[in-house]
Amino acid sequence: MPDFDQMTLSAAEALNSKLPDLDDDFTFKRKHSSKSISSRIFSRSDSPLLLNKRSTLEIGHTSTSLRKHNDEEFEGDMADWSIEGTGRRVAYDDFTTIDWIHDFAKERAEQQKVKQQKGFIGQLKIVYDGMQGWIVVLLVGITSGIIAGIIDITSDWLSDLKEGYCHTAFYLSRKNCCWGYDDHNQCNEWIAWNDVLETRSTGAKFWTNYFFYIIFSTLFATIAAYLVKTYSPYSAGSGIPEVKTILGGFVIRKFFGLWTLIIKSIGICLIVASSLSLGKEGPLVHLACCFGNIFPRMFPKFKYNEAKKREILSAAAAAGVSVAFGSPIGGVLYSLEEASYYFPLRTMWRSFFCAMVAAVSLAFMNPFRTGKLVLFQVVYDREWHAFEMFFFALLGIMGGLYGALFIRINLWIANIRQKSWLHFFGVHEVALVTFFASIVSYLNIFMSVNPSELVANLFQECLGGDYHNLCKHESHLKQALSLLAASVFKFFITAITFGLKVPAGVWLPSMAIGACFGRAIGLLVYALHSNSPDLWIFSSCQPDVQCITPGMYAMVGAAATFGGVTRMTVSLVVIMFELTGALTYVLPIMVAVMISKWVGDAFDKEGIHDGWIRISEYPFLDSKEEYVFNTSASQVMTRVEDLLVITATGHTLESLEELLNETDYKGFPVVHDSRNMLLIGFISRSELRFAMEKVKTKPGISNLAPCYFSSNIPILDSTIFVDFRPWMDQTPITISHKFPMEMVIEIFRKMGLRYCLVTKNGQLLGLITKKYILRHLAAIHHPVNSEDFHEAQNLMMLPERRMSSVAGENFGTD
Amino acid sequence: MPDFDQMTLSAAEALNSKLPDLDDDFTFKRKHSSKSISSRIFSRSDSPLLLNKRSTLEIGHTSTSLRKHNDEEFEGDMADWSIEGTGRRVAYDDFTTIDWIHDFAKERAEQQKVKQQKGFIGQLKIVYDGMQGWIVVLLVGITSGIIAGIIDITSDWLSDLKEGYCHTAFYLSRKNCCWGYDDHNQCNEWIAWNDVLETRSTGAKFWTNYFFYIIFSTLFATIAAYLVKTYSPYSAGSGIPEVKTILGGFVIRKFFGLWTLIIKSIGICLIVASSLSLGKEGPLVHLACCFGNIFPRMFPKFKYNEAKKREILSAAAAAGVSVAFGSPIGGVLYSLEEASYYFPLRTMWRSFFCAMVAAVSLAFMNPFRTGKLVLFQVVYDREWHAFEMFFFALLGIMGGLYGALFIRINLWIANIRQKSWLHFFGVHEVALVTFFASIVSYLNIFMSVNPSELVANLFQECLGGDYHNLCKHESHLKQALSLLAASVFKFFITAITFGLKVPAGVWLPSMAIGACFGRAIGLLVYALHSNSPDLWIFSSCQPDVQCITPGMYAMVGAAATFGGVTRMTVSLVVIMFELTGALTYVLPIMVAVMISKWVGDAFDKEGIHDGWIRISEYPFLDSKEEYVFNTSASQVMTRVEDLLVITATGHTLESLEELLNETDYKGFPVVHDSRNMLLIGFISRSELRFAMEKVKTKPGISNLAPCYFSSNIPILDSTIFVDFRPWMDQTPITISHKFPMEMVIEIFRKMGLRYCLVTKNGQLLGLITKKYILRHLAAIHHPVNSEDFHEAQNLMMLPERRMSSVAGENFGTD
Repeated sequence: MPDFDQMTLSAAEALNSKLPDLDDDFTFKRKHSSKSISSRIFSRSDSPLLLNKRSTLEIGHTSTSLRKHNDEEFEGDMADWSIEGTGRRVAYDDFTTIDWIHDFAKERAEQQKVKQQKGFIGQLKIVYDGMQGWIVVLLVGITSGIIAGIIDITSDWLSDLKEGYCHTAFYLSRKNCCWGYDDHNQCNEWIAWNDVLETRSTGAKFWTNYFFYIIFSTLFATIAAYLVKTYSPYSAGSGIPEVKTILGGFVIRKFFGLWTLIIKSIGICLIVASSLSLGKEGPLVHLACCFGNIFPRMFPKFKYNEAKKREILSAAAAAGVSVAFGSPIGGVLYSLEEASYYFPLRTMWRSFFCAMVAAVSLAFMNPFRTGKLVLFQVVYDREWHAFEMFFFALLGIMGGLYGALFIRINLWIANIRQKSWLHFFGVHEVALVTFFASIVSYLNIFMSVNPSELVANLFQECLGGDYHNLCKHESHLKQALSLLAASVFKFFITAITFGLKVPAGVWLPSMAIGACFGRAIGLLVYALHSNSPDLWIFSSCQPDVQCITPGMYAMVGAAATFGGVTRMTVSLVVIMFELTGALTYVLPIMVAVMISKWVGDAFDKEGIHDGWIRISEYPFLDSKEEYVFNTSASQVMTRVEDLLVITATGHTLESLEELLNETDYKGFPVVHDSRNMLLIGFISRSELRFAMEKVKTKPGISNLAPCYFSSNIPILDSTIFVDFRPWMDQTPITISHKFPMEMVIEIFRKMGLRYCLVTKNGQLLGLITKKYILRHLAAIHHPVNSEDFHEAQNLMMLPERRMSSVAGENFGTD
Repeated sequence: MPDFDQMTLSAAEALNSKLPDLDDDFTFKRKHSSKSISSRIFSRSDSPLLLNKRSTLEIGHTSTSLRKHNDEEFEGDMADWSIEGTGRRVAYDDFTTIDWIHDFAKERAEQQKVKQQKGFIGQLKIVYDGMQGWIVVLLVGITSGIIAGIIDITSDWLSDLKEGYCHTAFYLSRKNCCWGYDDHNQCNEWIAWNDVLETRSTGAKFWTNYFFYIIFSTLFATIAAYLVKTYSPYSAGSGIPEVKTILGGFVIRKFFGLWTLIIKSIGICLIVASSLSLGKEGPLVHLACCFGNIFPRMFPKFKYNEAKKREILSAAAAAGVSVAFGSPIGGVLYSLEEASYYFPLRTMWRSFFCAMVAAVSLAFMNPFRTGKLVLFQVVYDREWHAFEMFFFALLGIMGGLYGALFIRINLWIANIRQKSWLHFFGVHEVALVTFFASIVSYLNIFMSVNPSELVANLFQECLGGDYHNLCKHESHLKQALSLLAASVFKFFITAITFGLKVPAGVWLPSMAIGACFGRAIGLLVYALHSNSPDLWIFSSCQPDVQCITPGMYAMVGAAATFGGVTRMTVSLVVIMFELTGALTYVLPIMVAVMISKWVGDAFDKEGIHDGWIRISEYPFLDSKEEYVFNTSASQVMTRVEDLLVITATGHTLESLEELLNETDYKGFPVVHDSRNMLLIGFISRSELRFAMEKVKTKPGISNLAPCYFSSNIPILDSTIFVDFRPWMDQTPITISHKFPMEMVIEIFRKMGLRYCLVTKNGQLLGLITKKYILRHLAAIHHPVNSEDFHEAQNLMMLPERRMSSVAGENFGTD
């Protein structure tokens, strides 16, 4: 299948294959390196051209008089706001950074246009304009809830298929098949594979079950991997690193497309059913974001504005977490704290609405028929005691250590996988790993069940019943050992499986590991209390009443590992709070999460998703990290000598054409003239190219028509000239060369810049792009690693054929 | 008491009395208007001065060589970070805007210094540096919880004092006095005033109670008003508008001082006990912020950095809401959404910790002896039905209407109060209003109890008992009418009382009004269901089971009015969610809050606190509002012709002295020379003044020593000169004159600017300050009102004597 292998590119790989271009965003790279351009400043002495016919399009004597009449000719809904401001833009290319400032300016201009409408119809239009965002998030919320419900139900059914089937209706899970029976053993509608094969002896039954468990697990995972590889490579993994990157203002086309949605939904059901140590929670965020991308396409307001679309995507991410953990508030906080780069507070309310609608719509689906939104919601009826805080703190430390270790091992494996030949055998790898994992997993009950059920049962108090002897007094030590073994094994298997080319998240497995460990500790403390209730540490326990709740230890442990691996804080505590619903348990959870974060941060500052962002080399500028270093803008910028600068006058269409053909710069600063270097603006390659194509289609334009980038146009009465100002960013953000880099980063983050120009007394000194800043940060933070990965990238450099476009051709979806 | 009247200035008034100065921040105002300065550009032709001795302090030939040695001389801990960057600063004056950029740069520089420390002691110092913030918020959290508990207990006792006293221990409230009795009537320890006076007949008892009710209410309120007027005028009101303003980067000294804390705590107990329709919730936020101001003084890191101090204040605001509503998450969201202007996400975790500690510390106080954090926490055990959504939406509409009407009436009254002679009789006014309000209130049971108890009882389901016949079937209509009457009366009385010079908030009374109205609607629906259970709308009700929960209507109504009056969204829903603890009721609350906000916003866009900020003319730049208008920076800026600009060279100490004495500008842009007007930096009046004072104390400095603001210093070997660059902001944020105002506002908000300079090709064109932006916005949004208020301000112009300084002299506290 070598053909497919070429196509199996994740977003990270697709990006890497684009890097030769990206790397040189705005920087100098001559296509024909043989030909040397002696001067970096691109200007031509103006040759007076005498042409009689005038074209109106951006062509005129004084450039202002005629421009306004022709706005409509370029893009129907482009008002003249852009002409004096940030300039007109064409759509963003794939794998480029968006310009928040421009997009918000565009939105404001459209708002202004809408608000000017008068009369009843006008009023209605204003209301409709205001409601569009709400309609979109309503749709996103509803569909996110529904998809979460469908995945729950389907994966439940598939999971039970490993043990048998429902002979009255094959599509029912065991629980639904046997609905109404108190004891599932009485249920005759459910046919176990043992019954089909008519095995009798216990040994035979065990081996039959074992066999079917391995076969089905491997089969499910392999199908999932095959689907992903064949139809939608972007569906692999949890999708969170990409979600963060895209929300941070990067364009990865088709990543939130319909095809990704379909394949990832199917894949996640299969993966959950395969009992691999992987979760559906992260992927649910990705799926919700797919809806958050698909629905806005119906509304021009969002379709043509990447920044506005990201407001919807923020809300969608909140909805994703909301349905993943049944936690709308936690979802909003997650979106605010972790996912969103540019989260205007005014959209918080809409995000909350979206998350709430998603939760309600999931509740309406009622996938577990218990009224619970997620399997592992619990209610405790016991308080915790002060002495337990010691054990909670211990769980916190373990969580932090787990997180640090897990991230290192996982990224190390991911690195090996990318570099080695393994990379080309994604499906085979999945099949093999699942096969071996299922062989081992089946032998430990806590490893063989799927993580969601495991977590749910470990969180439970011992009130309603027993789960594999967790509540029997005599077996506490044995079970504790079994749980510890499960947590250690799960640790290694998850470190290997997370990163396989299947849709899968790391949140739930982390919780499962922490829950196993926590419950084990809880059981040990419980056993200690049962054996010696008179110990001084138990003095606050009331006699004859159960003092220790091992389930709560499981929950605290889960929070600690979750925190350790993701470094989430407030949102995580709120998610756990919403799972229990009582404020009482927030304090232990908070303490554990806090300690876990401190311990984890002592090793590495980054969470698992940030680690993946780093090794995937996504251009993501963390909005939380605080930087302290001693460089100024002038030390980091690309100097003007290494840039190609356009002068305001003295160009012809031909010379500009030549410029575009000969260089690969992504953009050109425009200066007044080559002597004074006074900055006038900035024009991107794509806009210049687009504008030139447009101009050329107009009649009467010769290749020698003079082109201007300023109002300083000589009044030559009978010359046709082209005015590129409407396509130029005339108000680029400029900073002084003395600015410390911390402040430059702050401005980039806060204002959502794509580039900024460094000036001194109005003279252009250099250019700083987001890419430079990231490289600067990488060089400071990971001087060794970043070199490593540059090597890796060189090794992996695939042909310029990008998966996304191939998938697009094949399936016609986006 | 005319002496006191002069001193009775709220923050708003103190600010207004400062306005003549403030108004002209940075703008031209000659003190001696008779003397005219012909040129706005301040430069002197350099007269060569030959002096032999060199002073080292900021004095040297080439300015770089000697500077570093002398940093320590100015401020011990000032590193050289400021010399190339934003410049050194002196402490902010009262009623000035802080410069976030400068303060964060300072913090980063100090971070850098700390991180360079090596060895074990160095490591410890780094850890201690990182922990300072946590220690401060821990202290703030604990004390906030304790003060909330103390206020609860004290106000409870004072409140019961209206009815009688505990003869075993006078300091006990009735509940605590009669602890252990099932029936409070059996409790002999509690002596009612009736028993003291030995009244027998029902009539006499009624009149006695009535009398004591009126007397005590009036007495409590009057004492509170007197205390506020005499000792701490800043304690008046809820303090929320000022909290928002201060968090937004404004300096109001002593507003969070110890004296405010003491008086406001005492006052709030008295006011709650007086049964006026006012709440303690808003003031609790103010009190928490007082702790958030007092504790950071122990740590130089926060004491000398206003921006860092605001991070603690954000956390304190969260703690305040946390203890006010028993809602830590709601508190953090409130701080994030409403209070904080500049909320770095990395401080969210600390805010959450602070809010959580406050809640735990309040729980430890256990003020109600029920384990509840606040009186009105409830648990419902019934679901809501789809048809009820109609009534919830109705409550939402009513909430919105209430909010809009309340804000208008309240601001109108506040305006009258400020303008008229009433202003001078604050205490008398309070006494009178309370007297009449208590006369009327006593006649309606729902008006006479204090709002907190009322809300608690209205929220309750009819399970555990009855509260004034709310649960009796036969009296539903009567009670509904009584509740409606109470809500209408409460509406008017609250509109009058909020704004009196006593510590008081509007949140709880709003909730009480909504709860009354909501419960009334609930009772009506309940009665309808009882009478005609077969109506089609009740088809989803199960037979023979109570279908309607009037308590839930009260809660939804309370949320709607709360939302209507404050326009809070997410934080409000989360607060209500935390009061009930179940996700089920979030949807109705969310719908009601959403509708309430829409309806309210249809009238006025601003919440009550924003309204107060506006009429108080605080310089607060709302971070949520989105602006759309058609102006560019060059249209709004103060043109360079109206500014006083300093040239880089050609000054002497004498000439600068003259400049400072003759003008009242708050700051001066520095340009290269008067011909090219190339911008070099910006120096504030206070820094220039401070630097000059410092220089003058050095020996050998003559008044004719040349002063430089640039590195462009002529090498005159034997001249002593002064280099002012370290005191100048050498990296002011500059924007292009073409920038649209929306973007300028965005930059001001996001970067926390104090001023920015408008340039064109490096040449200074003008200056924009936060004040101009606010004036620009005011002119656009409230063209009529702002004129009104300018009139008001002129009318009210009091002598230049500021309350804060007077209070400071008297009591020596800050």
